[in-house]
Parts: sequence; C-alpha cells; structure tokens
Amino acid sequence: MAKKIKYGLIGASGRLGSEVKNVFKDAGHELVFQLDIDGEKLTANPELLIDCSLPEVFEKSLGYQKKFQTPMVVATTGLSSGQLNQLKELGKNYPVVQSYNYSLGIQVLLKLAEVAYDKLKGWDIEITETHHRFKKDKPSGTAKMIQEVVKDKNVNPVSLRLGNVAGDHTIYFGGLGEVLSITHSATSRRTFAEGILKSAEFALEKEYGFYSFHDVVFEK
Amino acid sequence: MAKKIKYGLIGASGRLGSEVKNVFKDAGHELVFQLDIDGEKLTANPELLIDCSLPEVFEKSLGYQKKFQTPMVVATTGLSSGQLNQLKELGKNYPVVQSYNYSLGIQVLLKLAEVAYDKLKGWDIEITETHHRFKKDKPSGTAKMIQEVVKDKNVNPVSLRLGNVAGDHTIYFGGLGEVLSITHSATSRRTFAEGILKSAEFALEKEYGFYSFHDVVFEK
Amino acid sequence: MAKKIKYGLIGASGRLGSEVKNVFKDAGHELVFQLDIDGEKLTANPELLIDCSLPEVFEKSLGYQKKFQTPMVVATTGLSSGQLNQLKELGKNYPVVQSYNYSLGIQVLLKLAEVAYDKLKGWDIEITETHHRFKKDKPSGTAKMIQEVVKDKNVNPVSLRLGNVAGDHTIYFGGLGEVLSITHSATSRRTFAEGILKSAEFALEKEYGFYSFHDVVFEK
Amino acid sequence: MAKKIKYGLIGASGRLGSEVKNVFKDAGHELVFQLDIDGEKLTANPELLIDCSLPEVFEKSLGYQKKFQTPMVVATTGLSSGQLNQLKELGKNYPVVQSYNYSLGIQVLLKLAEVAYDKLKGWDIEITETHHRFKKDKPSGTAKMIQEVVKDKNVNPVSLRLGNVAGDHTIYFGGLGEVLSITHSATSRRTFAEGILKSAEFALEKEYGFYSFHDVVFEK
Repeated sequence: MAKKIKYGLIGASGRLGSEVKNVFKDAGHELVFQLDIDGEKLTANPELLIDCSLPEVFEKSLGYQKKFQTPMVVATTGLSSGQLNQLKELGKNYPVVQSYNYSLGIQVLLKLAEVAYDKLKGWDIEITETHHRFKKDKPSGTAKMIQEVVKDKNVNPVSLRLGNVAGDHTIYFGGLGEVLSITHSATSRRTFAEGILKSAEFALEKEYGFYSFHDVVFEK
Repeated sequence: MAKKIKYGLIGASGRLGSEVKNVFKDAGHELVFQLDIDGEKLTANPELLIDCSLPEVFEKSLGYQKKFQTPMVVATTGLSSGQLNQLKELGKNYPVVQSYNYSLGIQVLLKLAEVAYDKLKGWDIEITETHHRFKKDKPSGTAKMIQEVVKDKNVNPVSLRLGNVAGDHTIYFGGLGEVLSITHSATSRRTFAEGILKSAEFALEKEYGFYSFHDVVFEK
Repeated sequence: MAKKIKYGLIGASGRLGSEVKNVFKDAGHELVFQLDIDGEKLTANPELLIDCSLPEVFEKSLGYQKKFQTPMVVATTGLSSGQLNQLKELGKNYPVVQSYNYSLGIQVLLKLAEVAYDKLKGWDIEITETHHRFKKDKPSGTAKMIQEVVKDKNVNPVSLRLGNVAGDHTIYFGGLGEVLSITHSATSRRTFAEGILKSAEFALEKEYGFYSFHDVVFEK
Repeated sequence: MAKKIKYGLIGASGRLGSEVKNVFKDAGHELVFQLDIDGEKLTANPELLIDCSLPEVFEKSLGYQKKFQTPMVVATTGLSSGQLNQLKELGKNYPVVQSYNYSLGIQVLLKLAEVAYDKLKGWDIEITETHHRFKKDKPSGTAKMIQEVVKDKNVNPVSLRLGNVAGDHTIYFGGLGEVLSITHSATSRRTFAEGILKSAEFALEKEYGFYSFHDVVFEK
C-alpha cells in the first residue's frame, strides 16, 4: 500500500463514487481523472481506471480505457451479458476486476457457506435477507449468490423488509440437535469502496486477466 | 403455593401429562386420580381436574368433572367449537381455564407485541417462526396468535424449518433508523407444565368463570 | 402536524443539528433562528427553541429562551445536575422536554423490559450492548437505563465492541424452558431527530412542565 | 455404514451413554459388551470400544482395550495430561479417537472461524457463549476452543447464563461497515452420540493413530 496510485474515476459524483474518493484519499492515492454528469476533469494520465457508473455509460468507459491503456476495476451494476463479454475480452490484454458486490464480508460469508455445506450433508438449509422497505426486488442479489452455493438443495431465500436496514443476510444449517448459522450485516457503504481499493491494488500487480472480487480476496 | 392440591389428571401418560406429574410433584401436590390408556386409578376425590388428553376423550373428561364437581384446567389441543362452547357453559358454574399454549413467555411476548404495536405506528412489521423439519403446518399456531395482535397490518409470517428446533418466534418492528424485535425460544416442554400449575392455582381461587391462560398471567 | 412551526436551533451545524434541520424541513417547519460556531442568524422570533449543543453553551441557550419566551426541547448531553435543576425550574413556567436519548425504539424497549420484568419473576436476566470500536465507555448510557429497569436483579451489562456498529441493545429473560429477548438496533441518527420533532409538537401543546422523552411517548 | 458393528460401551448407563446406545441401535449396530455402575455384561467380543465414563474409570477402560485389542473412541471429559499421553501411546498400535466435544457443528464452526480469521485481518473479534444458569465455569470449554483459533487477538469470551439453555456460541468479526458472525446452538445431546458414531466408523477404517474429532470431520 506504500505506492501512490494515480487513478481515474468514472461516476465520481455518485454515492459509491464519493465513498471511493474518500477511501482512496485516506490511502494516499491521487485522483487525476474524473468523469460524471458535470463533465470531465483531467490533470494527468491515470495508471488505473475505476468505473462506478451506469450501463448506459459503459461504451464511453471502454473508450477511456482504450485511451489510457490501464487496468480497470468495474463496479457498475446491471451490465448486459454482451458488456460482460467485452470486459472478458479486454481481460486478455489488461487486468480487469468486475463484481456486483465489493464487500469483503460477503465474499467471506460465501466461502464459509461453501465449507459448511460440504461438511453438513443432509442438514436443512434456510436463507434469510433483510433490507429497507424501499427495496422492491426479492430476494436480493446477494441472497441469490448464497443460494447458488447450496444450489442442490433448492432453498428459497426468505425476504424481510424493515425500515431502512442496509442489508442483513443469514444462512442457517439445521441438524438434529444443532443449528449453525452465518450472518452478515452491512452497516455502511464505505465497505464497498474499501473492496474497490483492494481490487485496484490487486489489478496493478497483474499482467492481464479477467477477475472477480472473489479472486481478489481468495487468490494467494 | 403453600397449600397441597389433590388433583386428577386425564392423559397422565402422554408427553405433556408426564411433565405435569413432575412439576406438580416438585411443588408438593398429590395425584389422587389418573386416567390414561392403561385405565383409571383413583385414591381420593380430586379437588381439581387437569385434562391433557385428546378431543376424542373430551366427553369422558366432562363426565369426570360432573362426578367430582371440581374446577378444570384444559390443555387438550384441537377442540371443536362445540367442545369449546361446552367448556364456556361449564364456566358458568365452575372455574375453567382453557388454552392451546401454556407457555408464560409466549403470553408475555404477545403482551409486549401489543404494547410495541400501539407505540410504533407506521413502522414495518415482520414475523418469523422456526421449528423442526417435521412440523408440517405453516405458519405455526403461535405465529398466528402474534399475527392476530397486529392484524391491521396484514403481516404474513415467514416460516423456517431447521433440524429439531423446539420453536422460535420473533416479531420485528422497523422504523427509519431503528429496528425493535421481540424473540421467544422454547427450550423444553417443562415450561408448559409450569403454566398449567399456575393455572391450577388460579382456578382454585375463583368461584366460577371461563378463563384463558392470558387471564391467568395478566389478571391481577 | 398540520401547523407550521417557526423554530430556533442552537448547535445547528453539529451532527444531530443537521439531522434536525432535515427532519423539520421535511415536516414543513421553518428555521427562523440558528446559533452555531459560525455565529447567530435570526429572521423571525421562534415559537420554540431546540438545544443540540454542549454543556458549555448552556447558559447562552437559557439566555435565548429568556429572550424569546418559548418552550424548549433540550438534547444536549452531559448536563450537570445544577443545569438539570435550572431546566426543572424553567419547567414551572414553560414546557421543557429534556432527554439524553430521543430514540422512540429505545423508549419502547424500556417499557417492554418493564412489562416483562413484572411478569417473569425469578427468571435470569442478561443485558448486552454492541457499539463501534471507538466507543470507550462501558457499558453504554442506554444499557445503564435498561439496567435501571431491572435494578433489583443486579445485572451487569456485557459490552461488545465491533467495527462501526451504531448501537445494538438486548435484554434477555431466561426461564427453565424458554428465553424471551428484546433487541433494539440503531441504523441511523435520523431517528433521534424524529424524536426531537415529536417532542417539539408535544411541548407546543403544553402550558408548562418539565418532561422526559418517556413522557412524550407514553403520556396520553 | 452398511457393515454392522459389534461394539462395547463403558459408561453405558450415563446420559451420553444412553444416547450412544440409541444412535448405534438406529444405525443397526450391536452392543455386545457394556460396563456401568451395575456391573459388566458381555455377549461377544467387541470389535470397537467406546468410553463415555469418568477419569476414575480410565485405567479399567484401558484394561478392557488390552483384553479386546480393539480401536477406541474416548469421550470421557476431564482426563489428566498423563491419561492423554497413555492414549497417544496407545495410538501407536491402535486407532484412537479422543475429543471433549463430538458435535459436528462445533467442529465446523471452528473451521469457519479459522477461514474468516485468515481473511479478515484487522477486524475486531468478540466471542459470546450462553448456557443454563447451573453452569458454573466461565467461559465454557468450547468458548476456549474458539478463543484458541484467534489467539493472537487476545479476545476474552463473554458469558451469559440464562434458564436452561443447552449451549449457544457466537464469534463476531467487525469491520468498518460490516459485521460477520458465526453462531452454533445445541438443541439436544443426541448430536454428540452421532459424532461418536462417525468417529467409530472412522476408527474402524484406520490401521492405527491418535486422532481428534477434527480429524474425523476434516480429514479426507
């Protein structure tokens, strides 16, 4: 973490973009290029590009990557499979990290669920997720990721909607005589920005390749 | 609790009946009449009759009450509305306590839910219940009792089935900025027998009347 | 809530003060006087004064109350007993609401704990509180308030320090066969500002008197 | 599990011994030797010996192993280090499994705690354990095992004593913006007997060696 990174940020004024700026600043890195609805600001060529924007801006983002020839960390949600393929293609020549959820805790939860599932054959499984009342999709994307880990069991995640809860997820394993559960609670958006920082440092150490945040956390 | 009660027990060899015998014995009371599949045993006229049997035995139970002319505590589940009416009728001349759930903690949870509901207008509400994998009805009867407390909100209780969990119930109230929850976990059947003891002591102090376990717990 | 309130705010630029401004603005009320480290701004005489500042500013706050002759809602923490007495004295002529915690959920938790404690004699009691790693005092002030409800039991609250948790509190009641627990989780500061709004509306309906936030929530 | 095991059981009439008999019977295995306070019963030579007794009986148990020349599964708690050494010595010629806790869920919890600890460097850690009011030692032996996993962090487990709770353990990891927790709840003693069955099957497949229950669960 010693080295100072000159980075570019697309979607700089959004909620996640703002957190990214804070976290990178605290880590001593320098924002040299930014793009948002107020336009473009360039003070030096970035050595890494972060995209926290929208699928509609995606072509533009790729254009900037082409211009700067840098590794990329992509946090934009709702990309089409075509757009994901473009990133995979890009990964043949540049390091690219792409994820819909840059929370370290969620990655660890997924890993723990995998380990537990492997050892607790025949146990019952339930998944719950709790989010704020304004969240309309059920179950959450993260609950679907957990569901995927135990897919042979056909578990239907259960959704609770309460106040302005940022996001809680639990997976339960129930045997005859014991219950084991793993719970993740998000308390602030900052955690996602920290995952992006970790991914940036990871990308800068690679030659090329298309990576998930799971790779960043678990690859040695 | 000083006074020794001579009591009769119908359904004495069942799972709940066995717990009742233990709890009453520990409290110094004397079993003077019992009826179960092995037949009848009478050593003295009881001053109180407890029924932990089945709806099919109900007429027989009433017959014994008529014979002994005692107060009654009824814990039999699945009574028909006709049978419940017979108990209400009986309550005009004798003290009768009837409930499907003699857990003190559940009665307190219902009361707390009522108090919270009254103060947290406009908050979101969710109800969850967790039981062993063998429980087929969803939601549990207790979850329906909780649902009834907040009936204007049209809450659908959520059911989890895990291992051999005895029974957990939670009601959540979610406001913008805070979540309040009340949870009850059953850990053994003994608690129901203690509720029956409390009800027996209550019944012996009354002239007549048809009471619920809620009355036993909350009436002064 | 129909009537528009012209209010004054001392400590307007602090973290709680900022939330108060947001919540009051959303409710359609008008800030006509404010005081903070940047000085004083007065556009009309307020009909209510809110104090979210520091004990050091207290004398100044009282001076403004004298000038405007309004009801007061005081959220300043760490007041001396002498300062509290001055507020009680003021309550002889004006409505004054004073509390260290304007969370509605916490008031309801305290009430529920009281009801449960009354009904669950002889049960074991435990209290836990979880806060961010930067909180140094143990246990939290709120845990002490819960402890006070069950003071005959000599319960020592247990403190956990984790990440940046805003604040969780649980009181457990354990009987032989069941556990009942009540949990409050704070998810944002906004809830305190809403408690202050509720208190402001309450104060404007009174002639005079010294009130706690408990009175605001539970007095009819 | 197809093969029927002829087994011997020392401490057959104890609480754990009774569960072992039930679980082994359900699995189709045959009890051919038993020893308890009522004496010895031998109908055939056992091919495996299980010890659920007391440290005072340990020498006798070893004597029977010498007589029958079988693998051994030891669940006796409170063995001295000298006695443990005797078992390790025995492991040079026979398969020996020894553990103080044969719960599968606890083994998995310990593993998950290890994985999480490795990935969540710098996060805060807290451990809680809840047991019935009659448990006098604090913290529980299992809490100490969890503590051992994260020993570089100097975590002091927190103990709650409530009613007749069988045993709950939680380890929390708190980062800035998220909390991850792993919880184990015991609901019945049967789970330990199932761990002993698993260990018996494991021991019968080995030539020799001194194994923990962790080895049984995680060794391929």
